[in-house]
Amino acid sequence: MSTPPIGPVAPGATIGIVGGGQLGRMIAIAAAQYGLKAHIYCPDPDSPAFEVAGRRTVAPYDDAAALQAFADSVDVVTYEFENIPRATAEILAARRPLHPSASALATTQDRLMEKAFVAGLGIPVAPFRAVDDAAGLAEAVREIGLPAVLKTRRFGYDGKGQVMLRDAVADPAAVMASLRDQPCILEGFVPFEAEVSVVAARTADGAFSAYDPCANEHRHHILARTVVPAPGMAPQTAAEAVAVARTIADALGYVGVLAVEMFLVRGPDGRAGVVVNEIAPRVHNSGHWTIEGAQTSQFAQHVRAICGWPLGSPALVGTAAEMLNLVGDAAADWPAILAEPGSHLHLYGKGEARPGRKMGHVTRVTTGP
Amino acid sequence: MSTPPIGPVAPGATIGIVGGGQLGRMIAIAAAQYGLKAHIYCPDPDSPAFEVAGRRTVAPYDDAAALQAFADSVDVVTYEFENIPRATAEILAARRPLHPSASALATTQDRLMEKAFVAGLGIPVAPFRAVDDAAGLAEAVREIGLPAVLKTRRFGYDGKGQVMLRDAVADPAAVMASLRDQPCILEGFVPFEAEVSVVAARTADGAFSAYDPCANEHRHHILARTVVPAPGMAPQTAAEAVAVARTIADALGYVGVLAVEMFLVRGPDGRAGVVVNEIAPRVHNSGHWTIEGAQTSQFAQHVRAICGWPLGSPALVGTAAEMLNLVGDAAADWPAILAEPGSHLHLYGKGEARPGRKMGHVTRVTTGP
Repeated sequence: MSTPPIGPVAPGATIGIVGGGQLGRMIAIAAAQYGLKAHIYCPDPDSPAFEVAGRRTVAPYDDAAALQAFADSVDVVTYEFENIPRATAEILAARRPLHPSASALATTQDRLMEKAFVAGLGIPVAPFRAVDDAAGLAEAVREIGLPAVLKTRRFGYDGKGQVMLRDAVADPAAVMASLRDQPCILEGFVPFEAEVSVVAARTADGAFSAYDPCANEHRHHILARTVVPAPGMAPQTAAEAVAVARTIADALGYVGVLAVEMFLVRGPDGRAGVVVNEIAPRVHNSGHWTIEGAQTSQFAQHVRAICGWPLGSPALVGTAAEMLNLVGDAAADWPAILAEPGSHLHLYGKGEARPGRKMGHVTRVTTGP
Repeated sequence: MSTPPIGPVAPGATIGIVGGGQLGRMIAIAAAQYGLKAHIYCPDPDSPAFEVAGRRTVAPYDDAAALQAFADSVDVVTYEFENIPRATAEILAARRPLHPSASALATTQDRLMEKAFVAGLGIPVAPFRAVDDAAGLAEAVREIGLPAVLKTRRFGYDGKGQVMLRDAVADPAAVMASLRDQPCILEGFVPFEAEVSVVAARTADGAFSAYDPCANEHRHHILARTVVPAPGMAPQTAAEAVAVARTIADALGYVGVLAVEMFLVRGPDGRAGVVVNEIAPRVHNSGHWTIEGAQTSQFAQHVRAICGWPLGSPALVGTAAEMLNLVGDAAADWPAILAEPGSHLHLYGKGEARPGRKMGHVTRVTTGP
């Protein structure tokens, strides 16, 4: 087994990207700007990222031979989504530098481990309990109270794999069955003023750079709109949110871009604070505004971090930015968006505009006061 | 033979790009942002544009069968350089919409036709004469005077295919031989204050949009630095330069982005004016600053124009922008450029940094007053 090389990756090198969706696509484009090549690994032959990369591997995530050949063909490996099997990450990490690391991935792809990890850092999180079966659910509800959200520990995204529990749970076994009896976590409901996220980058030598916290609005559990700066978030609270993200990134020994989703809350004393909801060990939908709205896009920043390069400036280009997701049929509005001066249309090249499918986004940058 | 389809190209369609250099690469990246696919046609198997496109054809420009298959696989065809044979353009145009058109290409790829065309529009150009042989050179020098520049009519770029004549030409045959006895044009020297260019776009229905004229500095006949707005260029002169570009684009029935290179001159009365030097029927090195410096990049604008979409805003993002080419070894400075806050590094993924080879560029956008 070859030893992962040490030191920064130079232009001309190849970045391996596991996952072929829009995030991988935008990482590959950012890599190209720096003269890097991209090799995409994805089981889906119609992956959007394939269209912007010089090399592609179509193979399942558990194909050890394909993973090894992929790793051997690249200089550094990253991924665009956290639901890749741990074994996959370890096969890759044995042959090439993998950023973020397999351990950061393991911590953040399991909601229970993640919550325990964040709470262990002294950072506020919602009350939570592990739930392995119907009896455990009934007990967790007694301890945490309602409303609460039952979530599978793994493989959830965009509201998939979760059930909101508002009233007394009459039939815990039926609830567990609705989540296919997977290991779960029950999370107490946090009354929040806004959902915010901090998108930030960390390098192997501990350099850290965060974008301004942004406010996120969801519709049907899918991100609909991101606005930065987050309206009504005091500078002190924003600084606290960034400090929380840095604490998490440092504790994970994180390399690359991550997003920390938080609730903006107000205590009984009227003081604002943040409660961490979730960590995404990757570039994040709430950072798409950075392509035009920040000096360095989150994709370019991620490439810099995983290559061992200095991080770029996260400063806003204008005074504010807004990103709207184009979900399902909304992408059909592309002609109107194109015709709007100052709007930046992004489409991901996906075939069918299924309901709930992220087809693209549009960013508007405000330059005035 | 199939008839070229009518009407705008929609996201999901494929753009065919003839030529695989950095311009094709940046067009393909811009197309991807809009959800378009790219198919690159280039004889060189190591073409930089191949790395960012989903499809590629490696074949000579005179391979009719390969050209036809390429055309049949795409929805619209464009090109990144003007030195493709006329026959190539015509094979493509017979099967798919070709933008800019074969006739625009024919006019602008021959310096003599181009000069005559521009002069015929009443636009100032340097004095010029056709030169086909040594006797013709001697006569042209007598008519135009010295200094003057002898250029091959076709296939010149970055100072290749030209000879500066300062003193009396003792041996016209030797001069012609140094240009391999190709058909030439002698151009009188224009004393200029600055070299400027107008990068602009025109659509099939006559919409026109120009970026602010920019000032260009060359070193060894290769563009070294572009600055926008052009220092010392009065608004009235800038408007005149844009009007000249529009007149040319309209007369060519042009579709896509073009660059008109001009000399900024001052008449005996002290009045500033422009003299057209050259038309590039394509995106242009002096427009690279638009990627970060303008609301719409020249590459995105070109894609919009050839797809029949509305043109984007050409407004500056900040108050000014500067673009420096990284030629040859200059690209070795990439770590310092990356570390400079606010600089935007672009590398083209070319292998060897040969002297005079454009390896990348860096853009700096000024936001202050």
